[in-house]
Amino acid sequence: MKVRTYTIQDASFERSPDQDSDVFTANLVDERHGAPVTIGYGRYGPNQGLTETMAVDDVMIVLEGSILITSDDRTNSVGPGGIVHMPKGESVTIKAMDEGAVTAYVTYPHWREAR
Amino acid sequence: MKVRTYTIQDASFERSPDQDSDVFTANLVDERHGAPVTIGYGRYGPNQGLTETMAVDDVMIVLEGSILITSDDRTNSVGPGGIVHMPKGESVTIKAMDEGAVTAYVTYPHWREAR
Repeated sequence: MKVRTYTIQDASFERSPDQDSDVFTANLVDERHGAPVTIGYGRYGPNQGLTETMAVDDVMIVLEGSILITSDDRTNSVGPGGIVHMPKGESVTIKAMDEGAVTAYVTYPHWREAR
Repeated sequence: MKVRTYTIQDASFERSPDQDSDVFTANLVDERHGAPVTIGYGRYGPNQGLTETMAVDDVMIVLEGSILITSDDRTNSVGPGGIVHMPKGESVTIKAMDEGAVTAYVTYPHWREAR
Protein backbone atom coordinates (compact mmCIF):
# COMPACT_ATOMS: atom_id res chain seq x y z
CA MET A 1 0.00 0.00 0.00
CA LYS A 2 1.03 3.57 -0.60
CA VAL A 3 0.78 6.57 1.71
CA ARG A 4 -2.63 8.14 1.24
CA THR A 5 -4.48 11.17 2.55
CA TYR A 6 -8.24 11.41 3.01
CA THR A 7 -10.84 14.04 3.78
CA ILE A 8 -14.49 13.61 4.65
CA GLN A 9 -15.29 14.32 1.00
CA ASP A 10 -13.82 10.86 0.27
CA ALA A 11 -16.37 9.17 2.55
CA SER A 12 -19.33 7.13 1.25
CA PHE A 13 -21.53 6.76 4.31
CA GLU A 14 -23.67 3.69 4.93
CA ARG A 15 -25.98 3.01 7.84
CA SER A 16 -24.09 1.21 10.59
CA PRO A 17 -25.21 -2.46 10.52
CA ASP A 18 -27.67 -4.19 12.88
CA GLN A 19 -29.35 -1.05 14.18
CA ASP A 20 -31.78 1.53 12.85
CA SER A 21 -30.62 4.83 14.34
CA ASP A 22 -28.98 7.53 12.24
CA VAL A 23 -25.43 6.29 12.71
CA PHE A 24 -23.37 5.99 9.56
CA THR A 25 -19.92 4.62 8.78
CA ALA A 26 -17.63 5.08 5.80
CA ASN A 27 -14.61 2.80 5.56
CA LEU A 28 -11.72 4.33 3.64
CA VAL A 29 -9.23 1.49 4.22
CA ASP A 30 -10.34 -2.01 5.24
CA GLU A 31 -9.96 -5.75 4.60
CA ARG A 32 -10.03 -5.11 0.86
CA HIS A 33 -6.79 -3.11 0.92
CA GLY A 34 -4.15 -5.23 2.67
CA ALA A 35 -3.40 -3.07 5.69
CA PRO A 36 -3.93 -4.50 9.21
CA VAL A 37 -6.34 -1.74 10.28
CA THR A 38 -9.68 -0.38 9.15
CA ILE A 39 -9.82 3.41 8.81
CA GLY A 40 -12.92 5.51 8.27
CA TYR A 41 -15.26 8.35 9.12
CA GLY A 42 -18.42 8.09 11.24
CA ARG A 43 -21.46 10.35 11.32
CA TYR A 44 -24.12 10.55 14.05
CA GLY A 45 -27.42 12.37 13.68
CA PRO A 46 -28.68 14.60 16.54
CA ASN A 47 -29.16 12.50 19.69
CA GLN A 48 -28.51 9.29 17.77
CA GLY A 49 -26.32 6.46 18.96
CA LEU A 50 -25.92 2.77 19.61
CA THR A 51 -24.88 0.23 22.22
CA GLU A 52 -22.50 -2.55 21.35
CA THR A 53 -20.03 -5.07 22.69
CA MET A 54 -16.77 -4.44 20.90
CA ALA A 55 -15.64 -7.18 18.50
CA VAL A 56 -12.37 -5.30 17.86
CA ASP A 57 -10.28 -2.55 19.42
CA ASP A 58 -11.83 0.68 18.12
CA VAL A 59 -10.27 4.13 18.45
CA MET A 60 -12.64 7.02 17.72
CA ILE A 61 -11.52 10.63 17.35
CA VAL A 62 -14.26 13.27 17.57
CA LEU A 63 -13.95 15.84 14.77
CA GLU A 64 -17.22 17.79 15.07
CA GLY A 65 -19.99 17.89 17.66
CA SER A 66 -19.98 16.02 20.95
CA ILE A 67 -20.74 12.48 22.03
CA LEU A 68 -21.53 10.83 25.34
CA ILE A 69 -19.65 7.61 26.03
CA THR A 70 -21.14 5.31 28.66
CA SER A 71 -19.36 2.20 29.90
CA ASP A 72 -19.21 0.56 33.34
CA ASP A 73 -21.89 2.97 34.58
CA ARG A 74 -19.70 5.99 33.86
CA THR A 75 -20.56 8.60 31.24
CA ASN A 76 -18.02 10.99 29.69
CA SER A 77 -18.65 13.78 27.21
CA VAL A 78 -16.14 13.96 24.36
CA GLY A 79 -15.84 16.97 22.09
CA PRO A 80 -13.70 17.88 19.07
CA GLY A 81 -10.14 16.60 19.40
CA GLY A 82 -11.13 14.03 22.01
CA ILE A 83 -10.17 10.37 21.64
CA VAL A 84 -12.17 7.32 22.77
CA HIS A 85 -10.51 3.90 23.08
CA MET A 86 -12.99 1.02 23.09
CA PRO A 87 -11.09 -2.21 23.71
CA LYS A 88 -12.27 -5.56 22.33
CA GLY A 89 -14.77 -7.24 24.63
CA GLU A 90 -15.99 -4.07 26.35
CA SER A 91 -19.60 -2.91 26.19
CA VAL A 92 -20.20 0.74 25.33
CA THR A 93 -23.02 3.13 24.54
CA ILE A 94 -22.23 5.98 22.14
CA LYS A 95 -24.73 8.82 21.84
CA ALA A 96 -24.37 12.10 20.00
CA MET A 97 -25.64 15.29 21.58
CA ASP A 98 -28.04 17.80 19.97
CA GLU A 99 -25.75 18.87 17.15
CA GLY A 100 -24.82 15.34 16.03
CA ALA A 101 -21.19 14.37 15.52
CA VAL A 102 -18.53 13.50 12.98
CA THR A 103 -15.75 11.10 13.95
CA ALA A 104 -12.72 9.34 12.51
CA TYR A 105 -12.07 5.73 13.50
CA VAL A 106 -9.31 3.16 13.38
CA THR A 107 -10.00 -0.47 14.28
CA TYR A 108 -7.72 -3.47 14.75
CA PRO A 109 -8.48 -5.93 13.34
CA HIS A 110 -11.07 -5.16 10.66
CA TRP A 111 -14.44 -4.53 12.29
CA ARG A 112 -16.54 -5.72 9.37
CA GLU A 113 -14.80 -9.11 9.33
CA ALA A 114 -15.03 -9.49 13.12
CA ARG A 115 -18.81 -9.01 13.37
CA MET B 1 -8.70 -2.76 29.46
CA LYS B 2 -11.66 -0.47 30.05
CA VAL B 3 -13.22 2.07 27.71
CA ARG B 4 -11.38 5.35 28.17
CA THR B 5 -11.67 8.89 26.84
CA TYR B 6 -8.78 11.31 26.38
CA THR B 7 -8.22 14.96 25.58
CA ILE B 8 -5.03 16.77 24.70
CA GLN B 9 -4.81 17.83 28.35
CA ASP B 10 -3.95 14.18 29.11
CA ALA B 11 -0.90 14.30 26.83
CA SER B 12 2.71 14.41 28.12
CA PHE B 13 4.70 15.37 25.06
CA GLU B 14 8.24 14.14 24.46
CA ARG B 15 10.50 14.94 21.53
CA SER B 16 10.03 12.38 18.81
CA PRO B 17 13.09 10.07 18.89
CA ASP B 18 16.11 10.10 16.56
CA GLN B 19 15.62 13.64 15.24
CA ASP B 20 16.07 17.17 16.52
CA SER B 21 13.19 19.12 15.03
CA ASP B 22 10.27 20.36 17.11
CA VAL B 23 8.14 17.27 16.67
CA PHE B 24 6.65 15.82 19.83
CA THR B 25 4.66 12.68 20.60
CA ALA B 26 2.55 11.72 23.59
CA ASN B 27 1.45 8.10 23.86
CA LEU B 28 -1.79 7.64 25.77
CA VAL B 29 -2.12 3.88 25.20
CA ASP B 30 0.84 1.70 24.19
CA GLU B 31 2.74 -1.55 24.85
CA ARG B 32 2.41 -0.96 28.60
CA HIS B 33 -1.39 -1.27 28.53
CA GLY B 34 -2.24 -4.54 26.78
CA ALA B 35 -4.13 -3.24 23.75
CA PRO B 36 -2.86 -4.11 20.25
CA VAL B 37 -2.54 -0.47 19.17
CA THR B 38 -0.64 2.61 20.29
CA ILE B 39 -2.78 5.76 20.60
CA GLY B 40 -1.50 9.29 21.13
CA TYR B 41 -1.30 12.94 20.26
CA GLY B 42 1.42 14.58 18.13
CA ARG B 43 2.54 18.19 18.06
CA TYR B 44 4.57 19.91 15.30
CA GLY B 45 6.16 23.33 15.67
CA PRO B 46 5.85 25.84 12.81
CA ASN B 47 7.49 24.45 9.65
CA GLN B 48 8.86 21.47 11.59
CA GLY B 49 8.77 17.89 10.43
CA LEU B 50 10.62 14.67 9.80
CA THR B 51 11.29 11.99 7.20
CA GLU B 52 11.00 8.35 8.09
CA THR B 53 10.50 4.85 6.76
CA MET B 54 7.48 3.45 8.55
CA ALA B 55 8.19 0.58 10.97
CA VAL B 56 4.44 0.18 11.61
CA ASP B 57 1.14 1.15 10.03
CA ASP B 58 0.49 4.68 11.31
CA VAL B 59 -2.82 6.54 10.97
CA MET B 60 -2.62 10.27 11.68
CA ILE B 61 -5.65 12.54 12.04
CA VAL B 62 -5.00 16.28 11.80
CA LEU B 63 -6.77 18.18 14.60
CA GLU B 64 -5.26 21.68 14.27
CA GLY B 65 -3.10 23.40 11.66
CA SER B 66 -1.99 21.86 8.39
CA ILE B 67 0.72 19.45 7.33
CA LEU B 68 2.33 18.57 4.04
CA ILE B 69 2.71 14.84 3.36
CA THR B 70 5.28 13.86 0.74
CA SER B 71 5.67 10.30 -0.50
CA ASP B 72 6.51 8.86 -3.91
CA ASP B 73 7.27 12.38 -5.19
CA ARG B 74 3.72 13.53 -4.47
CA THR B 75 2.86 16.16 -1.85
CA ASN B 76 -0.58 16.61 -0.32
CA SER B 77 -1.72 19.24 2.14
CA VAL B 78 -3.86 17.92 5.00
CA GLY B 79 -5.90 20.20 7.25
CA PRO B 80 -8.17 19.67 10.26
CA GLY B 81 -10.27 16.52 9.96
CA GLY B 82 -7.96 15.02 7.36
CA ILE B 83 -6.57 11.50 7.76
CA VAL B 84 -3.16 10.21 6.64
CA HIS B 85 -2.49 6.47 6.35
CA MET B 86 1.23 5.64 6.33
CA PRO B 87 1.60 1.88 5.74
CA LYS B 88 4.53 -0.11 7.13
CA GLY B 89 7.55 -0.01 4.82
CA GLU B 90 6.65 3.25 3.09
CA SER B 91 8.87 6.33 3.25
CA VAL B 92 7.21 9.63 4.09
CA THR B 93 8.08 13.24 4.87
CA ILE B 94 5.76 15.07 7.25
CA LYS B 95 6.09 18.85 7.53
CA ALA B 96 3.87 21.29 9.36
CA MET B 97 3.01 24.63 7.78
CA ASP B 98 3.46 28.08 9.37
CA GLU B 99 0.98 27.58 12.19
CA GLY B 100 2.32 24.19 13.30
CA ALA B 101 -0.04 21.27 13.83
CA VAL B 102 -1.68 19.01 16.39
CA THR B 103 -2.51 15.44 15.42
CA ALA B 104 -3.92 12.23 16.88
CA TYR B 105 -2.32 8.93 15.91
CA VAL B 106 -3.02 5.22 16.04
CA THR B 107 -0.32 2.69 15.16
CA TYR B 108 -0.39 -1.08 14.72
CA PRO B 109 1.67 -2.63 16.11
CA HIS B 110 3.29 -0.46 18.79
CA TRP B 111 5.63 2.06 17.15
CA ARG B 112 8.03 2.33 20.08
CA GLU B 113 8.64 -1.43 20.14
CA ALA B 114 9.06 -1.61 16.35
CA ARG B 115 11.81 1.02 16.10
